[in-house]
Amino acid sequence: MRVRATILQTPRPGELQVLEDRLLTIDGSGAITAIGRGGRAEADSVPPDVELPPDVVLVPGLVDTHVHAPQWPQLGTGLDLPLEEWLLAHTFPLEARYADEAFARRVWADLVPTLLANGTTTAVYYGSIHEPATVALAETCVEHGQRALVGRVAMDHPDATPHDYRDAGPTAGIEASARSIEAIRALPGANGLVSPIVTPRFIPACTDPLLAGLGELAAATGTTVQTHCSESDWEHTNVVNRCGRTDAAALDGFGLVGEHTVLAHATHLDDRDRSLLAARGAGVSHCPLSNVYFSERVFELRSALAAGVRVGLGTDIAGGPDPSLLAQCGHAVGASRQLARGGPGAPVDGRAGVDPVVDITTAFWAATVGGAELAGLPVGLLEVGRPFDAVAVDLGPSGLGVWDEVDDWPRAFEKLVRLARLSDFTDVWVAGRRVAGRQAGEARRRTSTVG
Amino acid sequence: MRVRATILQTPRPGELQVLEDRLLTIDGSGAITAIGRGGRAEADSVPPDVELPPDVVLVPGLVDTHVHAPQWPQLGTGLDLPLEEWLLAHTFPLEARYADEAFARRVWADLVPTLLANGTTTAVYYGSIHEPATVALAETCVEHGQRALVGRVAMDHPDATPHDYRDAGPTAGIEASARSIEAIRALPGANGLVSPIVTPRFIPACTDPLLAGLGELAAATGTTVQTHCSESDWEHTNVVNRCGRTDAAALDGFGLVGEHTVLAHATHLDDRDRSLLAARGAGVSHCPLSNVYFSERVFELRSALAAGVRVGLGTDIAGGPDPSLLAQCGHAVGASRQLARGGPGAPVDGRAGVDPVVDITTAFWAATVGGAELAGLPVGLLEVGRPFDAVAVDLGPSGLGVWDEVDDWPRAFEKLVRLARLSDFTDVWVAGRRVAGRQAGEARRRTSTVG
Repeated sequence: MRVRATILQTPRPGELQVLEDRLLTIDGSGAITAIGRGGRAEADSVPPDVELPPDVVLVPGLVDTHVHAPQWPQLGTGLDLPLEEWLLAHTFPLEARYADEAFARRVWADLVPTLLANGTTTAVYYGSIHEPATVALAETCVEHGQRALVGRVAMDHPDATPHDYRDAGPTAGIEASARSIEAIRALPGANGLVSPIVTPRFIPACTDPLLAGLGELAAATGTTVQTHCSESDWEHTNVVNRCGRTDAAALDGFGLVGEHTVLAHATHLDDRDRSLLAARGAGVSHCPLSNVYFSERVFELRSALAAGVRVGLGTDIAGGPDPSLLAQCGHAVGASRQLARGGPGAPVDGRAGVDPVVDITTAFWAATVGGAELAGLPVGLLEVGRPFDAVAVDLGPSGLGVWDEVDDWPRAFEKLVRLARLSDFTDVWVAGRRVAGRQAGEARRRTSTVG
Repeated sequence: MRVRATILQTPRPGELQVLEDRLLTIDGSGAITAIGRGGRAEADSVPPDVELPPDVVLVPGLVDTHVHAPQWPQLGTGLDLPLEEWLLAHTFPLEARYADEAFARRVWADLVPTLLANGTTTAVYYGSIHEPATVALAETCVEHGQRALVGRVAMDHPDATPHDYRDAGPTAGIEASARSIEAIRALPGANGLVSPIVTPRFIPACTDPLLAGLGELAAATGTTVQTHCSESDWEHTNVVNRCGRTDAAALDGFGLVGEHTVLAHATHLDDRDRSLLAARGAGVSHCPLSNVYFSERVFELRSALAAGVRVGLGTDIAGGPDPSLLAQCGHAVGASRQLARGGPGAPVDGRAGVDPVVDITTAFWAATVGGAELAGLPVGLLEVGRPFDAVAVDLGPSGLGVWDEVDDWPRAFEKLVRLARLSDFTDVWVAGRRVAGRQAGEARRRTSTVG
C-alpha cells in the first residue's frame, strides 16, 4: 500500500517535525518500508492507494497507556468522591459484574471501536479479575485491529477489596494470571498486535505473597508489568505505613519494576524514586485529567524526563472522564501551568533547575513516542521500519477548521492537538489496516443551522 | 407549538429535577405558556409538533457568560504563555484585524452557529474596539437566532494596550461605546433577543476617565456592564498598586458594579469583595478551564454562593480552549476538587465553614439558572413564563450511549453534563425557534469500524 500525505509528528519532546507531501510505502505486514517525496507520485504510472487531500494531515496513532476497560460504563460519573470511596461505592461493584462474560463482551464491543475512532491505535488495558472477560477483551482487540497490552487484574487483600470481588488468595491469583497470559498468547491473530501484561492492581489491594509471586511470574514468562503507584495521599500513605518505603521502592522489592513497567499516576515520586525508575527502564503513565480528581498532587512531567524516566499519557478511563487521549495533551499542559504557579504539593518551580511548564509538542510526544517507549512497542513515529499506525486529521472546513489567515504549521498543530476529536479523523490505521474513520462526506459541522 | 419530552434541569444548586413525559405549549413569541403531562397528548386529536424519542431528553439552553468573539480564530493556541504575554503577542494583534469588517463577518458566521450547535443558546460577548465589527456581531446573533449581550470593548491605556489597538482617548472611547449601544438597540429583530452591554476591557487597559465615563454611560442608558476582575496575580497586583484597593472595590468606585454586572474570573476575591458584589446584585462569570492557564488561583464558587454572589459559567473563548459550555461544568467540579485538597492559593478548606466541593448539578445550575440570573435574562429553566430556550440530548445508542443496565437518572444526568457534545444534540431552540441540531439519522458513532 502507498499513502501520500503530509506528516506532523514529534520525534523528541518540544520538537515538531513537518514532513510535507510524503509518499509512504507499507508492506503486507503493515510496516513502513519507504518514505519518499510525494511529488514523485505524479510521474508514476500507478497512483497511490490513499492520497489525502491537502488539508488532511497524518499524525502517528495515539498510545493510551492507562485504560480500565471494565469501567467504561461508568465513564463520567462519581467524580466528586475521593479515590477510596469512588472505588468501593462505584468501581468495584461494577467490575464485579464482569463475572458475566456476555456483559463483558457487550462492553468491549462498544469500548474498543470507540477508542479506535478517537485515534487510540494502542491501548494498555486493565481487565477485571475474571479470566474469561479479560481474554475476551484481548479477542475484541484482535477482532477490531487495535494494538494492545491486556492484563488480568490481580488483587487479594481483604482490607482494600470487597469479599465478592477479589482473588481467593495469592496462589489462586498468580495461577489465574498465568493462565490468562497463556490464553492471550494463544489467541489467533494476537501475535505482534495483542500481548498480555502482568497486572497487580496496586499495593493496597494485594498481599505481599501475591505481589512477590506476580514479580516472579513476569520474570518467568518474559511479560512486562503494569500497576498503580503513589496516586493519592491515601494510597501513598497506605504503602509507606505498610511497607516502610515509597510505592516505587516497595514495588521494586517485589520484582515488579523492570524494563517497560508502566506505573500509573506516580504523582508523589521523590528524587530517589525517579532515579530508581530510570535505572530500571520503567516509567509513568501520566493521567492529568484523572489526577485533577483523584490525586492530591500534580505529576512533575519535566522532572521525570530530566531524570531519564519514561513517560506516556493515559486517559485512566474511567477515573478520567474523557475517552480522548489527544485531550490529555491539553490537560498535561494545564497541569504543568499549575505547577509553575505553585499548585497542589507545589514546591517545584525551579527545583533541580527544571522549569515545569510543558508545551503542546512535548505533550504530544508523550502521547505517541513517549507512550510507545514506555510500553516497549515500536510505534509512535511514522518512519521506516515501524508499523503504519496513523490517524488522518481533517484541518479543513469540513473538519477542525484551521484559519488559513492566521495559522502556520505550529499553530495548526497546536489546534489539532487541543481541539481535534473523532469527527475530524477521516481514517485510522493500525499496522496498515484501516480500523476506523468517519464516512466519506461526514463532517464535524454537520449541524443544520436554520438561519 | 407543542413539545412532548422528559425534562432534566436544576432549579437550585445541587438539585436535579426530573420531569418525565411532559407536554410543553409554546406561544408565538417563543414563551412557554403551559407544561402538562405528556400522557394526555395520546388522547388528543392533534399530536404534538415535536415528540422526542424516549431516550432523548430536554435540558435548558446553556448560558455562556464570557466569550471573546474576536479570539475565535486563535482558539487552542498560545496556552503555554502567561496572560500578559498571551495578550500582547497573540490576542491584541488578532483583535486589531477586526478593523476589517469583512474579516469580522467571516469569523462571526462561523462562531455563532458553532456555539448554537454546542447548545449555547445565550452568549455574553466581548467584541473588539471596532464599532462596525461589533454591531455586525449583534446582527449575526439576530440572524442565527442566538440570545446575546454584545459589548464594544473600550480600552485606552497606553501602558497595557498597543498603539494600533486602543481607543484614541477616553472621550473617543465613551462616544464609540455610546454609538454602539444605539446601533445595536436599533437592529431589526434585536428586541428581546440581542442587547448591548457596556464593556471596559479591564482596569489595566483603561484610564480613570474612561472607566468613570463608562460608569456614567451605563447609568444613563440603562445598560448592564461586563469587565474582567482579579483574574491573575499580574492583573490583581496591577490594580491594587494603581488604585490602592481591590479590583472589585475600584470598579465599584467608577460606577461599574451594579445589578447584573458580569465580572469575569474574579479568582482573587476576598470577603469584602464578595459582600460588595452581593450587595450590588453583581456576580462572577466563572471560567474554570481558562483559569487553569491564566489565573494563579482557583475561584471559590461555593464561597461566592454562600455570600450571595451571583455566579454563571463561561468558556472565556479563547483563553479557555473549548467552545462547549457544558464542558465547563466538569472543569468547575475539578477546580473545586483542587481547592478541597489545597490547590493554588489554597487555604480554603473549611474557610467560613464552606466545603469547596461542587457537584455536577451545582455546576449545571451555574451553566443555566446561575448564568441567566447573573446576566439578568429570563432563561435557564423550562417553566411557564420563560422563553423556550432548550437543547434536546440523545442519550441512546445513536448519541451519548447511556448504559441502561447501570445508569439511573442522576447518573445519566452526570454523564450528559460531562460527556455530551454537539453531535449528541438533536435540536437546539431559542425562543421557540429551532436554531441548530444534528440532521435526522446523524449520530455520534458514525465512524465506520472495518472489523
